[in-house]
Amino acid sequence: MNPTFSSRLKDIQAERSSVVCVGLDPDPARLPAHLGANPIEATRRFCLEIIQATRQAACAYKFNFAFFESLGSAGFEILSEATAEARKHALTIADAKRGDIGNSASFYASSVFNDLGFDSVTVSPYMGQDSVEPFLQHPGTCAFVLARTSNSGGHDFQLMEVQGRPLYEHVADSAMQWASHLPAEAGLVVGATDLDAMARLRRAHPAMPFLIPGVGAQGGEPGAVMRANGGGPVLVNSSRGIIYASNGPDYSEAAARATRKLADELQEARS
Amino acid sequence: MNPTFSSRLKDIQAERSSVVCVGLDPDPARLPAHLGANPIEATRRFCLEIIQATRQAACAYKFNFAFFESLGSAGFEILSEATAEARKHALTIADAKRGDIGNSASFYASSVFNDLGFDSVTVSPYMGQDSVEPFLQHPGTCAFVLARTSNSGGHDFQLMEVQGRPLYEHVADSAMQWASHLPAEAGLVVGATDLDAMARLRRAHPAMPFLIPGVGAQGGEPGAVMRANGGGPVLVNSSRGIIYASNGPDYSEAAARATRKLADELQEARS
Repeated sequence: MNPTFSSRLKDIQAERSSVVCVGLDPDPARLPAHLGANPIEATRRFCLEIIQATRQAACAYKFNFAFFESLGSAGFEILSEATAEARKHALTIADAKRGDIGNSASFYASSVFNDLGFDSVTVSPYMGQDSVEPFLQHPGTCAFVLARTSNSGGHDFQLMEVQGRPLYEHVADSAMQWASHLPAEAGLVVGATDLDAMARLRRAHPAMPFLIPGVGAQGGEPGAVMRANGGGPVLVNSSRGIIYASNGPDYSEAAARATRKLADELQEARS
Repeated sequence: MNPTFSSRLKDIQAERSSVVCVGLDPDPARLPAHLGANPIEATRRFCLEIIQATRQAACAYKFNFAFFESLGSAGFEILSEATAEARKHALTIADAKRGDIGNSASFYASSVFNDLGFDSVTVSPYMGQDSVEPFLQHPGTCAFVLARTSNSGGHDFQLMEVQGRPLYEHVADSAMQWASHLPAEAGLVVGATDLDAMARLRRAHPAMPFLIPGVGAQGGEPGAVMRANGGGPVLVNSSRGIIYASNGPDYSEAAARATRKLADELQEARS
């Protein structure tokens, strides 16, 4: 029997003393100049070197599909190669924010889990149950459903009051319920920029894995985030704060230091 | 100055006497056997032949990204080639249901509009304004925001009552408002399976383009759909009812006949 995503997460976090997820958002315009002017080759080297450098302090890697898709079919090849490398060292998250009718969702899920070999995926809830369930069919994986996101537009609909409670709480309850009879786990995306929402969601769902973006560049403070999360399973993502810690030839060492620093801050806040 | 998406839609629909959008959902397991056992080559031929056969009765082609992504980098090449072919004959829709924070959304938008050359895209609203606006920056294009979808899970959140009105109405109002100060148009995805919702949305937004899935295989009846839509700009999508009208060697002729038949039924209902 496959171990669950949560149990794998727990093991790797204990081994590394780290809850940090490194977010790979390789923007060609921000890559170190010494990687050269070819965006394909520069992106490939950048991703592989970041993974090598950070692998002892990261418990997961989150691949933002937007940046790979913008490189066309070559981007897909890089995504595939870098995911295979990341899987050797840590858990992997396909940050694709999928959400489509059941039949299409099955194809997206098969691509992400069977072909690319990811351990988890981000999923948008707007189209409801049959759009999320295909992502809950793969044992040992986790579908992180967008609940309360950290971007400025996150409040537009997510905070709308439905029967006395914000929409994001209904989304979280539904995700939990849908997963209850399926082989995979449901997690939640909960931004570090709304700690009240985080605390409410954690009280309601003590055992759900939370993927937390918004620490660092977007403003979330590590200590406060860990308090709001309580003791539940958690992945704290940092993208720009790690991968662009330096844009010189020392960028991978700088990324490694930034990962370890964030990991230590979060560990200290945790204990 | 670029003509708007709506004006291009109006012109091509008048020329073809058709509001039909052909949905390209090429499932390797359902392709005609004579196209061979290699899913890459079979998918490529299938898409190009369907476009050739239906080009006089289709006003648009909708590419469902799930099916292309599931073929890996080769699928991206087919998507690129087939989109280039479709653009010669009709408008094109990237059915990718994107929805991510502003920076990532800009990359998705650039990929869809600049690199692949699509005329429009489907977008998920859950992450709010900054996740949709990057898709409204390309003059002459349209971002179809998911409002009331035709799948079974469409009722899970979209019908939730917020301040006395269903969530999908708030989504539609927001999309309209966001587009009002940006170069592109916002449209709505409105399924043929909830005609009451369609009529309400049309009354509120007489000039917004509606992309209507759910006719045919999912149960929507052409006459009733056109009445609910009123006279507004509309694209009625059929995927499986057209592309799998036959799975024999005559599949492309059968697709052409199914497209023309649906186009005629919709024209009759319209007048």
